[in-house]
Amino acid sequence: MFESAELGHKISKEIYDRDVPKLREDLLNVQYDLAEKKRFPVIIVVGGVDGAGKSETVNLLNEWMDPRHIHTHAFPEPSDEERERPYMWRFWRALPPRGRIGILFGAWHTTPIVDRVLGRTKAAQLDQSIEEIIRFEKMLTDEGALILKFWFHLSKQQQKKRLKALEKDPKTRWRVTDTDWERFKSYDRFRKVSEYFIRQTSTSEAPWIVVEGLDHRYRSLTVGKLLLEAMRERLDEKPVERLPDKTPPMLPHIDDKDVLTALDLGKPLKKEKYAKDLETWQGRLNLLTRHPKFKDMSVILVFEGQDAAGKGGAIRRVTQALDARTYQGIPIAAPTEEERAQPYLWRFWRQLPRKGRFTIFDRSWYGRVLVERVEGFCSESDWMRAYSEINDFERQLLSNHSVLVKFWLQISKEEQLKRFKEREKTAFKRFKITEEDWRNRNKWDQYHLAVCDMVDRTSTAIAPWTLVGANDKYGARIKILKTIVNRIEAAL
Amino acid sequence: MFESAELGHKISKEIYDRDVPKLREDLLNVQYDLAEKKRFPVIIVVGGVDGAGKSETVNLLNEWMDPRHIHTHAFPEPSDEERERPYMWRFWRALPPRGRIGILFGAWHTTPIVDRVLGRTKAAQLDQSIEEIIRFEKMLTDEGALILKFWFHLSKQQQKKRLKALEKDPKTRWRVTDTDWERFKSYDRFRKVSEYFIRQTSTSEAPWIVVEGLDHRYRSLTVGKLLLEAMRERLDEKPVERLPDKTPPMLPHIDDKDVLTALDLGKPLKKEKYAKDLETWQGRLNLLTRHPKFKDMSVILVFEGQDAAGKGGAIRRVTQALDARTYQGIPIAAPTEEERAQPYLWRFWRQLPRKGRFTIFDRSWYGRVLVERVEGFCSESDWMRAYSEINDFERQLLSNHSVLVKFWLQISKEEQLKRFKEREKTAFKRFKITEEDWRNRNKWDQYHLAVCDMVDRTSTAIAPWTLVGANDKYGARIKILKTIVNRIEAAL
Repeated sequence: MFESAELGHKISKEIYDRDVPKLREDLLNVQYDLAEKKRFPVIIVVGGVDGAGKSETVNLLNEWMDPRHIHTHAFPEPSDEERERPYMWRFWRALPPRGRIGILFGAWHTTPIVDRVLGRTKAAQLDQSIEEIIRFEKMLTDEGALILKFWFHLSKQQQKKRLKALEKDPKTRWRVTDTDWERFKSYDRFRKVSEYFIRQTSTSEAPWIVVEGLDHRYRSLTVGKLLLEAMRERLDEKPVERLPDKTPPMLPHIDDKDVLTALDLGKPLKKEKYAKDLETWQGRLNLLTRHPKFKDMSVILVFEGQDAAGKGGAIRRVTQALDARTYQGIPIAAPTEEERAQPYLWRFWRQLPRKGRFTIFDRSWYGRVLVERVEGFCSESDWMRAYSEINDFERQLLSNHSVLVKFWLQISKEEQLKRFKEREKTAFKRFKITEEDWRNRNKWDQYHLAVCDMVDRTSTAIAPWTLVGANDKYGARIKILKTIVNRIEAAL
Repeated sequence: MFESAELGHKISKEIYDRDVPKLREDLLNVQYDLAEKKRFPVIIVVGGVDGAGKSETVNLLNEWMDPRHIHTHAFPEPSDEERERPYMWRFWRALPPRGRIGILFGAWHTTPIVDRVLGRTKAAQLDQSIEEIIRFEKMLTDEGALILKFWFHLSKQQQKKRLKALEKDPKTRWRVTDTDWERFKSYDRFRKVSEYFIRQTSTSEAPWIVVEGLDHRYRSLTVGKLLLEAMRERLDEKPVERLPDKTPPMLPHIDDKDVLTALDLGKPLKKEKYAKDLETWQGRLNLLTRHPKFKDMSVILVFEGQDAAGKGGAIRRVTQALDARTYQGIPIAAPTEEERAQPYLWRFWRQLPRKGRFTIFDRSWYGRVLVERVEGFCSESDWMRAYSEINDFERQLLSNHSVLVKFWLQISKEEQLKRFKEREKTAFKRFKITEEDWRNRNKWDQYHLAVCDMVDRTSTAIAPWTLVGANDKYGARIKILKTIVNRIEAAL
């Protein structure tokens, strides 16, 4: 892996001075082309050995190109904001939108490697991180991102020489710290772990590019030329109309039984009983949020359901039990321009709660496999891969001591018609019913299938769906509150 | 994951009898269409709960379709042949060629799940298996395979009832063994582990399809219809001319230093010294093969190099030291028809040595990233993904106590010309030089780049390349023998 990067590559000053002006011009052109076409983001990951020119290269790229279109992020010790979210949250925050270049200086690879070098983790844990990183990067490239992962390398001798040279020069002495020398002592172990990591995470879509870091002219020209070529190639690529569908079909529905038809849509609950139950469960929920351990967890609630199934009303019965400072309600409608320029999960990552808080999603990431599937807003392979992407996402949420409760509210077709008509009659409810609701209703059967497939593929032991028969609003609300209380209690 | 498969699906006899004749006819048609077009293999993986109809379904498919075009494999306890090879070897053997259907009854998923259920492995080991399986299945789908993974499910109550019913009926009593009841005791644990496994290995290209196994008519119709639809869809799919290239470019060569130019091509070794060294190292190699521990390892040698670099001569100097019963030499030329109908690594898997044996490859799987790349025999994304596929392959070899030694023999362009001309002059060497050799020589620079990229991406800590300057044949042969001896010694 490191053979080519230990040869002592060198570029003379003459060649460098000759090549750089043209390279900078080309890089600027390709950068503006990218910004104009907005077809994909460029994610530059910078890693490698200390003293191999990582930081200099980051600065140089900002100098060579228009820094207004470059987002540069370094990742020192995580902030408290970051520590309260899943590990990948800080990287999601840093993703560049389509049309921009993001430079991630020490990205998601750093902690798994360093932890393993320092013996904080076992080999198997490193493998788990590797698997997660591969899945994450695959999601990014499937979403269209161009990922360039540069690994700046020095041999042990080279690193020693380089650290000494930096120390000797008064202008660069500040660059070398005791930590650097401390880390130099573990060079062999660092090399071994990174070699393994690089090998395992070099996929064809996102391979590591190992660059010898000794000679700054060689290093800079190599990175510049590769970046140019990669962007040019991708920009010139004619988009293929339709990718071949490599996904097998879903389970056929050959009888009339499925998770929705099997659901009891709810017997009426008497108003008095409802009022009493509501008080009980809201009280218990409120009490739980004041439990001393509650400040170490966060709660994410997902509400999905047909139009007029009563999501809004159910959510209000939940929030009534909460201190307004502890929750945030997120209604999901069409994505904003900023959100459309990112992978579809981005808009949900940005809304994840801190510890001790609730986030309540009124519709959610499941739009990908519901409305986007049914309406054809994304391709079949896009929504097919979403099932496992969503499972990955939710696993990350749960590994961060979050409680995730997912509700599907189901009403009968007749009940929906009744509610639609009521809404049209009542002046203060009229805003709730639109042309779109009627159009969706015409696709009832398609949504029905999509919901069944969604439950089949994303109701997991760690993040099960709770299907709620919602023909009776009272009963549905009580069931929802009860479920939330039970899930939080189990997690405390 | 199992919600839909615990609803008590049922198909009446009337509907079944009405639908089956047409389904069988359609299945036969699609099967012949597949056999004729030979575009892809169909791999049906059968897994699930005991008593859920796995075996019955396998029989039924063979009954419904033309069994001559179906390869059915079960995987009981591995044979000694199989135990001496890497875990995946038996499954590679069972892969159906393009145009055929292969039914794998209990495939690569069984051991990881069962071992975890019985507590023989830790959670992290299961994760490692999962990662390997995902990479393996991705390779298969990238190579064009249609993979259908059926998981036959029963709820705990259903399984109990089913086992009892089978036991009661004299015709089926033999199906239920003590092991089945023993395993029933771990139902909950089995369910938990499989749920996790199914979730993690359900990718968009190869998701698990969970089928309720209770009602044999429901189960059979579901599998038949899904199989039909999946094959029809894939056969009707118009092949896309050219897939978008999602691979970033390789490291640019911006100076004249690379692993090949940096290589010392060899100073002449005197004939007498050579004869003495040869005897020494051949002797040591022979001795090693008689070491008591040698019978627990296998040795795989890979020889690559330019035309006329001396691979054949070097290989002969190795085999001279070996008992003819302990090695097999595999010259790799164009693949046979049978081999072309399989993933490109298949032809190498079939040649893996048993314990205590050598396999010597004269050219190898690296053809994918050398000749196939340079000549355009496969697409860029095909050879780009080959680097990690090859690394995966070699990791499996090594995890099986194999010693893998990879040689690249490098001669200068002038030396090659000299050797070509000599071959043309000498009658008994003339068979060694063909038009193709001259054509390859014209692509010297392209091969040069391909070799550098190959070393960069596949010379790993566990499976390094040994680059051999081969202008001097004597020196090259001694270096090769020495390397083999050292590597075997280190492994013993």
